[in-house]
Order: sequence, then C-alpha cells, then structure tokens
Amino acid sequence: MKTIGFDEWKRLQLRVGKVMQVQQITKTDKLYRLKVDIGARDPIQIVTSLVPYYSEEELAGQTIVVLVNLQPARFAGEVSEGMLLCAEKEDGSKCVFLTTEKPVDPGIPIT
Amino acid sequence: MKTIGFDEWKRLQLRVGKVMQVQQITKTDKLYRLKVDIGARDPIQIVTSLVPYYSEEELAGQTIVVLVNLQPARFAGEVSEGMLLCAEKEDGSKCVFLTTEKPVDPGIPIT
Repeated sequence: MKTIGFDEWKRLQLRVGKVMQVQQITKTDKLYRLKVDIGARDPIQIVTSLVPYYSEEELAGQTIVVLVNLQPARFAGEVSEGMLLCAEKEDGSKCVFLTTEKPVDPGIPIT
Repeated sequence: MKTIGFDEWKRLQLRVGKVMQVQQITKTDKLYRLKVDIGARDPIQIVTSLVPYYSEEELAGQTIVVLVNLQPARFAGEVSEGMLLCAEKEDGSKCVFLTTEKPVDPGIPIT
C-alpha cells in the first residue's frame, strides 16, 4: 500500500454539506443533480450516481461529506463542483453516504 | 481555492473502520489509542485526540472513517497507523467523527 504524507492529505478540502435540493437528471438512470450548502455564500451543484440507492426524499435535507476542491467535471451535460463521499462495495451492491455522528453546520472542515 | 485532480484523490485510501478497543494514553489529556478493524487480517492502531469530545464508552463499537495509507506517525510514544476523520470547528469547540448513514462492514472503501 503506497503511503502519502500529511501535506498531501492537507491539499484536499473536505467539508460538511447539507443537501438543499435533489433532482434526477432526465435521460439518465443513475444521476442526481444536488444543490448543496457547504457554508459558502452560494450552494454548489454536485452530480452523484445515487439513484439506485436513495430516493430523492431520502437525500433531501441530509448532512453529507463533500470534497469541495476537486476539479469540476461534467456528467450528462451537468457540471459537478464537488464529490459526495460514499462507502461503496467494490461490486456496487451497496453504496452508503458518509455523514457526521452528530449534527454539525454546513461548511465545517473535515480534519 | 486550489483544485486537485481525480488522480490525486485516488492516491488516498479511505475506508470504513470499526472501533474495537479504546484506551486513553496515560500522561496525556487528549489522546486515545484505538484498535480499529479496517477489514484487514489484523486491526490497526490509531492515536486520536478525541478525549475532550467523547468518552471511551461512546467511541467503543462505533463505525468510523479512516485514512489508512497516511504515513505512520508517533504521538506520546504510540504509533498511529491511520487517521480517524472528524468534522472539526476551527476554534476546536466542536469535533464530531464521520460515520456512514447506514451500517456497513469494516474495510469498505470510500469513493
């Protein structure tokens, strides 16, 4: 297993987020477009492939963990400004999002 | 905010862990020594400064998230073979560990 240094870890910005809005992207069977409060002035948009695992109702309002400084990418024509972190079995049979053990405000950094 | 590429994210190995044992390190007021099941043959040892925030009883048995390929470091003479991830306010007034929204087995990777 290749080890990394603490400086490399510090380059990643992970933060607590709160899901403000959830919509399945039409013409896809896996992708949601989320609006996520990360404690900044405006919410960010995140595209995530959680449709097989969670309903829109189950995701709305949830506290999640977001990698906020990942280079933005496009999926199905929609920009994703971050990545929602999940625990995911290699065979895709299970995918469970990360959260905090107690409620905390959006924007709090992960250390 | 400096962005990182997906390849940089992939160098980090984050996994679900389960806390098997918790002991405060004597002569310190902040440090616990944990034994954590990360789905490997043997549990790993993690040193974490959660004494002000959680009791031993509150941590034992919990599902946590661990950066498992961080270069090992020593704290108060004890080796730490990984890092337990927390949401932590900048002023240190609050520190809450990350967990999974539903129970999942130790060792499952974070993606």
